[in-house]
Amino acid sequence: MSTPTYGLRGVLSPVLTPFNADRSPSPVRFIKHCRWLLRQGVGLAVFGTNSEANSLSVSEKRALLDALLDAGLPPAQMMPGTGACALPDAIELTRHAVNSGCAGVLMLPPFFYKGVSDEGLFRGFAEVIEAVADARLRVYLYHIPPVAQVGISFGLIERLLMRYPGVIAGIKDSSGDWNHTAALLKEFQNADFDVFAGTETLLLPTLQNGGAGCITATGNVNAAAIVRLAQTWRDADAAAQQQRLNDTRAVFQRYPIIAAMKAAIAWQSGDLHWATLRAPLVELDDAQQHELQEALTRTGFEIEDAAMLAADLKEISPA
Amino acid sequence: MSTPTYGLRGVLSPVLTPFNADRSPSPVRFIKHCRWLLRQGVGLAVFGTNSEANSLSVSEKRALLDALLDAGLPPAQMMPGTGACALPDAIELTRHAVNSGCAGVLMLPPFFYKGVSDEGLFRGFAEVIEAVADARLRVYLYHIPPVAQVGISFGLIERLLMRYPGVIAGIKDSSGDWNHTAALLKEFQNADFDVFAGTETLLLPTLQNGGAGCITATGNVNAAAIVRLAQTWRDADAAAQQQRLNDTRAVFQRYPIIAAMKAAIAWQSGDLHWATLRAPLVELDDAQQHELQEALTRTGFEIEDAAMLAADLKEISPA
Repeated sequence: MSTPTYGLRGVLSPVLTPFNADRSPSPVRFIKHCRWLLRQGVGLAVFGTNSEANSLSVSEKRALLDALLDAGLPPAQMMPGTGACALPDAIELTRHAVNSGCAGVLMLPPFFYKGVSDEGLFRGFAEVIEAVADARLRVYLYHIPPVAQVGISFGLIERLLMRYPGVIAGIKDSSGDWNHTAALLKEFQNADFDVFAGTETLLLPTLQNGGAGCITATGNVNAAAIVRLAQTWRDADAAAQQQRLNDTRAVFQRYPIIAAMKAAIAWQSGDLHWATLRAPLVELDDAQQHELQEALTRTGFEIEDAAMLAADLKEISPA
Repeated sequence: MSTPTYGLRGVLSPVLTPFNADRSPSPVRFIKHCRWLLRQGVGLAVFGTNSEANSLSVSEKRALLDALLDAGLPPAQMMPGTGACALPDAIELTRHAVNSGCAGVLMLPPFFYKGVSDEGLFRGFAEVIEAVADARLRVYLYHIPPVAQVGISFGLIERLLMRYPGVIAGIKDSSGDWNHTAALLKEFQNADFDVFAGTETLLLPTLQNGGAGCITATGNVNAAAIVRLAQTWRDADAAAQQQRLNDTRAVFQRYPIIAAMKAAIAWQSGDLHWATLRAPLVELDDAQQHELQEALTRTGFEIEDAAMLAADLKEISPA
């Protein structure tokens, strides 16, 4: 609890994007959730895969980021996702993030065309970096082949590091394959390049092999326990901690994980709007919600201070 | 040539998007190319996969569509692509197309998340249709699993047709699998629902089985010959025509096809800017260009009236 965050290392979470009943983004809930994450010691990788970021327009993302900053949340703890299929969108979001003082950006490659060349992907990243043209820019590459299908090869990382040293700052590896993360750590991890596992189930081996931490979906719900392992991974109980994290993760992974996390927050905070998703994702049905609640109760899991996540009705009424 | 087009049937082409040297869209070349397509008898499926549509921002697409309309091109011959990962983008583009009088829109499902449910995809299409809320809207579903990965099942089509009869107007099948196209024709083709093959290599069997025609990349370069088959498919030489179309297509398909078509237009029109692509796609290299030219020359292929595609330098200098 209340552990200080420490820059873009340790545990970050692709922050869930809460919606109102009409599926418009809910800045009030978003701010509350980001405050809650920071209090738990989790950095803000807003606009990631688990944020339904690609289901948001560029202007919705800009407005949500502005809402966080207007509420006084620290951009030094923010790594917004800014990659997009269309480079003008990626440029606009990246420029806005840098101008807002965000410590870094997490960048998907353009992901519509499949089987594209490293030359094409290099040009994509280069075009964004050259267009933003700001010495403050720090780009974390986002490797998530199970969803984006378009991955980031070792050759591409090398080429980007050679051309943009100091700008290319790290990678989030959401391959889900420890061998891949281990190879990235061996090849690239150093003082100027941070390798993050894309799941807390690989947090302990990532830290043992010199990595920076993890950027993980379930940071949205199991924040304190994940942060504790990140901070005490040299302790004797680290393996046991990792096992408990894995057990909790496994419960959420029985379901489409974004829907399951939102359902858990809706349940524990008492704010039912939290369960809302944008198409093409769908909410858990009643039976699934009940099952999830039973399974979480059996493991003794609960979201710390969940009440602070609930939006007050008066806060969300139109100004 | 100069065959009249006939509404949204027959041959349409996902219109290539020409760029200036700085990779901004070139409305001058775009208008010329669309005029050329219409003269050949090809309808305008602007903003398709082969248009690099997902590499364009929403505002770039709106501006290009406006440029066509301002130039007097007929929206009755237009089926712009308006699907997007983010529903607000799809809604904005679809509304703009309908308000512009476009005869239909070609709609990708939201394609970032993989393995999503038909319920989620149904909600995605429904949300766009309900938000646009315009009786003029005609939606053509875009099934292209090799690229989007997210396909459109028969169950989804049935459900959409049941809920939105008269709005759901057809499908483009870019599965590349004749068995799939044949099953769509058998199950769904009727006076109110048109099945288009996604390639002219399936044009003859599609028409023989009652289909509407094809929406095909190579319409951008081999327009007249494809239109001729669409108009004379009952003639004795239809199979021979189909074979010639296939032979030409095969030459382009030796290369990344968008780059190859743009290279061919640059070569034959003499307007070298035509070869420009946006990342993550890359231009053919010199050897590939040379090979392509040789291969096309051997087959006797040439782009009809290619000179009309070249932009005049004075037309593209800033106003």
